[in-house]
Formats: sequence, structure tokens, C-alpha cells
Amino acid sequence: MPELRKDPITDRWVIISTDRARRPSDFVREMTPSTPSTRVCPFCPGNEEKTPPEVLAYRNGSCPNQPGWSLRVVPNKFPVLGIEGDLDREGEGLFDKMQGVGAHEVVIEAPEHALSLTALDEKSIEQILWAFRDRINDLKNDRRLRYILLFKNHGEGAGATLEHTHSQLIALPVVPKRVQEEVESARLYYDFKERCMFCDLIRQETKSGERVVLETEHYVVVEPYAARFPFETWILPRNHRSHFEESDSAHFANLAWTLKSTLRKIEKVLERPPYNLIVHTAPLQEAANPYFHWHIEIIPKLTRVAGFEWGTGFYINPTPPEESAQFLREAGLA
Amino acid sequence: MPELRKDPITDRWVIISTDRARRPSDFVREMTPSTPSTRVCPFCPGNEEKTPPEVLAYRNGSCPNQPGWSLRVVPNKFPVLGIEGDLDREGEGLFDKMQGVGAHEVVIEAPEHALSLTALDEKSIEQILWAFRDRINDLKNDRRLRYILLFKNHGEGAGATLEHTHSQLIALPVVPKRVQEEVESARLYYDFKERCMFCDLIRQETKSGERVVLETEHYVVVEPYAARFPFETWILPRNHRSHFEESDSAHFANLAWTLKSTLRKIEKVLERPPYNLIVHTAPLQEAANPYFHWHIEIIPKLTRVAGFEWGTGFYINPTPPEESAQFLREAGLA
Repeated sequence: MPELRKDPITDRWVIISTDRARRPSDFVREMTPSTPSTRVCPFCPGNEEKTPPEVLAYRNGSCPNQPGWSLRVVPNKFPVLGIEGDLDREGEGLFDKMQGVGAHEVVIEAPEHALSLTALDEKSIEQILWAFRDRINDLKNDRRLRYILLFKNHGEGAGATLEHTHSQLIALPVVPKRVQEEVESARLYYDFKERCMFCDLIRQETKSGERVVLETEHYVVVEPYAARFPFETWILPRNHRSHFEESDSAHFANLAWTLKSTLRKIEKVLERPPYNLIVHTAPLQEAANPYFHWHIEIIPKLTRVAGFEWGTGFYINPTPPEESAQFLREAGLA
Repeated sequence: MPELRKDPITDRWVIISTDRARRPSDFVREMTPSTPSTRVCPFCPGNEEKTPPEVLAYRNGSCPNQPGWSLRVVPNKFPVLGIEGDLDREGEGLFDKMQGVGAHEVVIEAPEHALSLTALDEKSIEQILWAFRDRINDLKNDRRLRYILLFKNHGEGAGATLEHTHSQLIALPVVPKRVQEEVESARLYYDFKERCMFCDLIRQETKSGERVVLETEHYVVVEPYAARFPFETWILPRNHRSHFEESDSAHFANLAWTLKSTLRKIEKVLERPPYNLIVHTAPLQEAANPYFHWHIEIIPKLTRVAGFEWGTGFYINPTPPEESAQFLREAGLA
């Protein structure tokens, strides 16, 4: 069973994944590039038995764990957290730990062996958003779970180990420190101004326009003012909602179009970079609130530039967001 | 002039380095591996004119910016911050910014074109520690500066762009948020217990021994309990001091030996990985305090494993620190 351990200095919980403990040689070996195209893809139709049994699938009448699906959600074969058992919080001298209880699932975004989300049509992308919502609403019933991380690592350089386009979900028994800080800061702003900081940000950004990448009916795509990384890109819903799963799902078709257009612009300008995409949403078991505003953050992984933050905990961004916004704005979608 | 911009949501300051703004094609080009060995090394003796004039050098009577030095500190040729000017703090609607005032220096650790700090003798490594101290004490006189980041990126995978062994120093007009949190948390612990958390940690770790890598006369090397990364390693001084520059410099010979031994163990077990080394010290202009305890953190950069944190802001470590400690403990130094 993996363990959650708390760093006493920073109050940050870390998953120590004892089940998949690695010997030093595993790291050395892993750094040589793999050749995934010669392996059998466990995410392709016909290979359903190569994954754990599905927890959700959109299908047209076919049987579970058989071909005939358009989207499939399965537990991760090498989960970082286990769904069974109690938290068993306990101290270890100065330290605190609990059992690594939670869920780790993979959203297989489409049956075709597409290498990128942008290769999918908008209906398929819309389905991914529905799957995110459906999984959150199901997992919310488990009161041990306090936060759900929804994310996508695209490309080997961003941590993806399989090329068939997919996203991941990790449900945690704690709220990550970074999320806590973001929510707390939004709450303080609201207490002070009686307005949502993100709504203010959308108003200011759409008025000035200099950091706007794209505006669609229900969403605004911007490069953030204090971007940590070159070409860091946020997708914000115009309507205030604290939780992704409570957002206007009637707008998901528009979000699918917005997301696809944004990623195509990034792929065009940066020549198909690896990237991480993260859904920022309010903690799972908390009620809807007027201060936090869910959104999506996309971080292209531009290797060399990234070294600094690792070393120092301080971000240096060599590309002003006004410039990256211009590049992305001008990139056509053809 | 670079700008410091504050993210309103996380209160994190970011350097937007407008001077070295990059076009998208720069990133694409940078990802192809360079071949540094065919270029002239600007850090080798005889090439002193290829760097800005030195701000510190340890020499045996030779003239500044000429050969004959054993260690040399020069301003970074492509600084992320500029030393001239005022902070000019101002608002931009919702946002806050100031001029990017600060220092960015390179410590050329030795005249020989060594590719690793571990190739240097202990006397040379001790000199690096003296240089760190001397530069901090000099820069401290500039009251605009609030924090000094001392770090070393070793290897291309950790962000180093030149192979001649060197460290870096960045002096900032703000205290980075991560440092603030670390110091604040140590203060709260002290308020509660009237003991330093790090002193407690040293007592507990040396007693149990399971996460100890090395114990020397004045230092303890451990794998932290909630390690974020596989083989993350901390070097802690046994004597309490909040500031690196106020530490017992009589102990620097022992620290040089401890540091070299630790890095050699890491190089041996992980087959010479890239790594980041960071000195964690209390804010520059603050008085010595009983709650923060300076230390060194070393993070080997094991590529594939690193993807997750990027995507989610949450750490998953596949290697329990008890196991990495055992590997490092058992690695001989021969």
C-alpha cells in the first residue's frame, strides 16, 4: 500500500509509492527512449483485457470490456493510490502519515490510436469533458476523497508513457497544498472586494486584449500576466463556477472547440511540443462558492528553459506573455 | 529591463525576462543537443575576456581578469535581473509589478575544465563555500536585495548550458514564496515547541538511522521523510544557524568533504545523473533566528519520473527514502 507522508517543513503531502519501488538501475534504463509503436497498444479496441475492467465507457450497446466503445475509463494498471482501506492517520515521531487511499484512473479518449487530442473531432473531445464530469460525480460519493486532479500529460517529455491519446484522474484524500493556497487566496480577494478575482481578471484581460489568445462564446483563452513558463496558457469559462463538475455542461461543445483550437495553435507555433494540461477546480466535498473559478492550465514543456524552477523554486520566464499571446493569436487554425 | 510580476492568484513573483525574449523557433532549436566540447570555453583560464569583469576572484597575486586564479565570480553574461535602477513598484489594474532589480552571478568553481564538482579536490570545494559566503556578505549591503538563491545546475538535463563546473547566485528584491512558507512554518513550530524543527529532525533521524546517508563531524546527510523526488538528499549542519553566511565557516573543510562524498555516492548509484543543488537559507536582511536552520538540498533529475509534478502540482515519489538511503549508504567512495 502506498503511503501519504507530510513534509513537516512545508506541510506538503507526498505520495510515497512503495508498491512500485524502483531500483536505481530502473531510472537509468528509463532514460533511453522507448519505441512504443512496436508494442501492442493496451488502449486500442480489441485489447480491452490488457487494462483493468472499465469503470465507465460510452458504448452503443456493446458489452463491457469489449470493443464498440467511443471512450473508456479504466483504473490505472500501476496506480499510485489504492481504493481499498482506511486512511489510518498516524504520527511517526515528528512526522505524519496516512495510507495512500484514493483512485487513479485513465481516460482513454478515443478508440482510434490517435497520437494527439487535436486529431480527434470535436464530438470526441466533448465526450472527454463529459467523462471527466461523470467520474467526478461518481467519486464524490466516497467521502474519504477530498480532491480530484484531472490532467493530461502529452508526449514523452511531459511524462506520458503511452502514446494513444489519454488523460488521467487522481482522487486524493487530501487537498494539495497548491490548490489550498489558490482557493484561500481567491477567498481573501473576495472578502476584500466582494468580487471573484478570476471574473475581474477576465474583464481586465478581454478589455486590454494584449494577453488574449482566443475568445469564444463561453470561454476566454489568455496567457497569464505572471506566466511561470513560456506559452503557459489558461482557458477560463466566462460564467462563474467554482467546480468543474458543476459548470454549464451545455457549454461543453463550445469548450471542446475552444480546447482543440488552443492546442492546435500551440502545436503550430511550437512544433508539437509535449505539454501538461491541468483542470484547476475547487475541493471535491466543498459547496459551490463565489470566489474560486475553475479553469484549465496548459503548460508546454520546453525542455531547456525549464531547468531553473527545479533548482530554485523560483520561476524565470524568458517569454513575455504579451509576445506569446501574439504568436498564438496570429497562428491560423488551417 | 526585466520585470518582476506577481501572480494575483498565488502571490508568487515571477521574473519576466524581457531582455532575452525568445521567439518560438528558439525553443525548438534549443531542444537539439548542443556539442559544447567543440566550442571555446569562456570559463577556462586565458578566456577571461569572454565573461563580464569579475566581481570576486581568489588569486595568487595575478591581475584581475587575467589567468592565475583558483576561483572566479563573474556577472552572468545573460542576466535574468539587472543591478541598476529602482524597483518602481506599480499596479497594472488587478496586477502588480516592479523592475527586475537584482544580481545574477556565476561562480566558476575551478580553473580546470572539470565536468563535475566531484572531480575537484576538497580544498577547491571549500573555496566555493567561501565564495558563496563572501558574495552574500557583499550583496547584503545592497538593501534593495531581500533574498539570495545559491544553486548549481549540473548537467544539461538539469538546466546547465556550459559544462565547465560552476554554480550560480541570484539576488532578488523579493523573498520567494517557497522560502517564505518554509521560514514561516519553521517559526510556527518553534512558537509551539520552543525547539527548532530541523534540530528535532536531526535528532530523530540520527537516532533511527534508516534515512541517514552519511554522518560527519559537523553535518548529517539524510533522505527526507516526505521526499518529493527519488534520491532527494539533504545536507544539514548539526549546529543551529539560520543563515548560511553566518554558519561556522571553520566547518567548511568538513562541509566540502561531506558534499563531495554525498555527490560521489549519488553519481555512483545513479550513474552520473544531472542534478540541482540548492542552498536553503533565511532571508538576507533578517537577523539570525532560532527557528530556521540553513541546509543544502540535492535533487537528482531522473527524467521520466519527474513528469507528474509538472502536471499537477502534487508530488509522487516511486522510491521510498529508506530505500534510497540504503543504496547511498552502501555505495562506497572508492
